[in-house]
Amino acid sequence: MKALWFDGQLELREVETPRPKAGEALIRVSLAGICGTDREILKGYSNFRGILGHEFVGQVEECEEKQWLGKRVVGEINISCGDCSLCMWGLGRHCPQRTVVGIVNRDGAFAEYITMPVVNLHLVPDSIPDEAAVFVEPLAAAAEVLEAASIVPSPRTVVLGDGRLALLIAQVLHGNETSATKVTVVGKHAVKLHQARLLGVKTSDIGVEKLPAGSFSLVIEATGSPDGLAEAMRLVEPRGTVVLKSTINERAPFDTSKLVVDEITLVGSRCGNFSTALELLGAGKIKVQQLISQKFPLESGLEAFEYLKQKSCLKVLLTPGSGASN
Amino acid sequence: MKALWFDGQLELREVETPRPKAGEALIRVSLAGICGTDREILKGYSNFRGILGHEFVGQVEECEEKQWLGKRVVGEINISCGDCSLCMWGLGRHCPQRTVVGIVNRDGAFAEYITMPVVNLHLVPDSIPDEAAVFVEPLAAAAEVLEAASIVPSPRTVVLGDGRLALLIAQVLHGNETSATKVTVVGKHAVKLHQARLLGVKTSDIGVEKLPAGSFSLVIEATGSPDGLAEAMRLVEPRGTVVLKSTINERAPFDTSKLVVDEITLVGSRCGNFSTALELLGAGKIKVQQLISQKFPLESGLEAFEYLKQKSCLKVLLTPGSGASN
Repeated sequence: MKALWFDGQLELREVETPRPKAGEALIRVSLAGICGTDREILKGYSNFRGILGHEFVGQVEECEEKQWLGKRVVGEINISCGDCSLCMWGLGRHCPQRTVVGIVNRDGAFAEYITMPVVNLHLVPDSIPDEAAVFVEPLAAAAEVLEAASIVPSPRTVVLGDGRLALLIAQVLHGNETSATKVTVVGKHAVKLHQARLLGVKTSDIGVEKLPAGSFSLVIEATGSPDGLAEAMRLVEPRGTVVLKSTINERAPFDTSKLVVDEITLVGSRCGNFSTALELLGAGKIKVQQLISQKFPLESGLEAFEYLKQKSCLKVLLTPGSGASN
Repeated sequence: MKALWFDGQLELREVETPRPKAGEALIRVSLAGICGTDREILKGYSNFRGILGHEFVGQVEECEEKQWLGKRVVGEINISCGDCSLCMWGLGRHCPQRTVVGIVNRDGAFAEYITMPVVNLHLVPDSIPDEAAVFVEPLAAAAEVLEAASIVPSPRTVVLGDGRLALLIAQVLHGNETSATKVTVVGKHAVKLHQARLLGVKTSDIGVEKLPAGSFSLVIEATGSPDGLAEAMRLVEPRGTVVLKSTINERAPFDTSKLVVDEITLVGSRCGNFSTALELLGAGKIKVQQLISQKFPLESGLEAFEYLKQKSCLKVLLTPGSGASN
């Protein structure tokens, strides 16, 4: 099968089609999304080698558990041991033995086929088309913000960044607004901010660098940039909270004294519950298809990564098996 | 009067005795403690210029409010405006207009006299001797750990560091232990760890670098070293909490991806409630006088700072007005 392989360099390779092990399913990938983390892996993040890609929707073609055959599925990306104390506490996403699809020691979804443990699969309801289902992984990560340290939108919440993940987070928070809370997106890209407004999310008219220091009680950092943390720390008020979503390869310069003196809480947040994301999509509460900027066939994967460098670009999808650009 | 003045260089100077403004008291300093933050200021932290020192106990010599005259007092170190929204919310310690005794735009206590707003003063009960009262400021900061983000000792709590503040924090947490929770101090100095055990606190026999990664659910970083954060991040388990107490001049290298991937919560914690500290001391729950390594007269202040460089040294006090070493 064809696959986008990373080995210090990204390339399209002809590789052997994987065979499902016991408890696994073989899934034909219908659509796969390129994430900021994929681009960080190209810079060296996670030292990954193999097939990239962790956002996907596909159809089960082989499985010992026959009820899965032919079903449309999405898959939780952390494959945990199931035996350690973290797994027992329901924190399999933090299992120290875990592999992570397309990120840590496990081939990903930028390929015609992927294998995955059946316990990681979620059935996609008919009401959710592939173009929405491919957003389940990033939407789950976005919704995790609400769970991180029981965070609720505060009177002054800002989402820092206007990319794919930022606009998903903003929608999730927006859906949890009350009359006393407001969520604002600040970013640097007019086209993306326009898209945010079309999605019903408030944006700031003034640039992020002009926003007054210490003016937000909750800052969600989703810039995908190494500068994001410093900017978030500048914007948060004393005793406020910063939620950090960006996984980046670089080490961020960090003024720890500011965190101590202003008694800031900094919360890391990564993956989330697929069921939450599927519920949000099924209920039509989150709009995702508007975030699709372009689709490319798997064969044009390198071109897709190039396309993604455009500042106005939101989500780029790969269509393995299509054989031609949509 | 004599004072330890910092102006890029620490020196003993003869300066004018301050005059209390309206609402202020003139306090004769009996004892003052040297803190890690003072040493960081010597390296450039906070860009401070003036009389150093923020831990002290003294006696009121002049005050319009006559009931304070002759009273032994300690003083909250943040002098806030009282008018801004943070002050209104009871967060005067975070008032953006605040000065901070011996740290930000306000002369400190390494002098024969200091002036301070009466609203910042706390009466020291007769049951608490000067040698204990001089610990009220750092003990308040230590007790703040319990308040920071409603943190309670978790099943596996470690205090990183074996210095003055670390041993105060360990005692405070120890006092809040239940049968299900345990607090361990890890540090690098045998003498200090021995002192911790004398204070009833559990210490680890193996060195911090040998402790397994991810083995604590709550890590209190009180090393006073720029390496402390990285070590704390190594020791905390996924979804765990790190409380950062050290205010240091250097920027710490920080692997933000680890925070995101392991979904760590990092909480900054600084000053605390003086009343809490006075209650703890009054009730005899915290032992502080054992932490005094040496006393120096104010005139030997430079020598005191040199003495503090010894690895086995805990608290060093200055005795303005004594004129001779005790």
